[in-house]
Amino acid sequence: MELVVLRLGHRRARDKRATTHVGLAARALGADRIIITGDKDEALVDSIQRVADRWGGDFKVEFRAKWEPAIDEFKEAGYEIIHLTMYGLPFQTRLAKIRKSTRDKLIIVGGEKVPGEVYQAADYNLSVTSQPHSEIAALAVFLDNFFGGEELEKEFSRARIRVVPQERGKRVLEAGISSA
Amino acid sequence: MELVVLRLGHRRARDKRATTHVGLAARALGADRIIITGDKDEALVDSIQRVADRWGGDFKVEFRAKWEPAIDEFKEAGYEIIHLTMYGLPFQTRLAKIRKSTRDKLIIVGGEKVPGEVYQAADYNLSVTSQPHSEIAALAVFLDNFFGGEELEKEFSRARIRVVPQERGKRVLEAGISSA
Repeated sequence: MELVVLRLGHRRARDKRATTHVGLAARALGADRIIITGDKDEALVDSIQRVADRWGGDFKVEFRAKWEPAIDEFKEAGYEIIHLTMYGLPFQTRLAKIRKSTRDKLIIVGGEKVPGEVYQAADYNLSVTSQPHSEIAALAVFLDNFFGGEELEKEFSRARIRVVPQERGKRVLEAGISSA
Repeated sequence: MELVVLRLGHRRARDKRATTHVGLAARALGADRIIITGDKDEALVDSIQRVADRWGGDFKVEFRAKWEPAIDEFKEAGYEIIHLTMYGLPFQTRLAKIRKSTRDKLIIVGGEKVPGEVYQAADYNLSVTSQPHSEIAALAVFLDNFFGGEELEKEFSRARIRVVPQERGKRVLEAGISSA
């Protein structure tokens, strides 16, 4: 099963950090790749990809100018389309069904205004609470529940840098060299 | 039990949206209040507080110039101090113990650079994966696991606006008026 995150409506100036958080959280919490739509922002795509490559694993970052053909393409390829929105049904009421399905997944997270067509195209419109908060938080909670916590144990292959967990302080191994 | 989030090192220009996400995610996922330290930013505090009041519940937003006296104060008041950091021990290895404790909690989330004193002051330095991602995502996953999903069912009292979950589209009730 492949899990792809689609980040809608990136705005170059305003969303630089939020989209970076979405991308890195997607990777850390078990997604295979992210597709960013909206303003073209090569520096952002490169910067997320560089972090991903350095910290290991096969996470891929990709920009597409338009969201509509992207969603169509995934639908045709048989992906289950899950749109996270505060207006949707509580995700926990659909989680068991979604976890049981072996289909590939496209998880859509919006920016400020999501077009009505996205709600129509989605197989599921799901909320992580019906409160206003953060697409980053919503994606994180959804992924952690979807993977049932197993993503927290994920190993990232060929990492050039990794953290050695400590009770206090920092320990980082970089290409075999330990620094505290 | 009270659960307070402490957001360290807010920078007025750069962190406006990230700190807003931290504050709103904290509220949506069951925290009682947030304390923001760093640059004084009354507009930000007011804007999170306004959203919180409008959507109901008793969430409080507060600014403090310095983090050190804030942490000292909570320590003296008997709060358990939990610092979320990618360098810490996997949170899931300490979760059962923390959930069992009835002490009030202070959950610390950092900005870019967290002073070493914070690692020393904390009862727990805990990671939500040892990968670089997002303090917003880390806080969200921690809170959802800490509350065991019960926070997803939380009712927000005296809300002036609320969402009626829909399979497709949006339905919002505002002071008794329904809008689609």
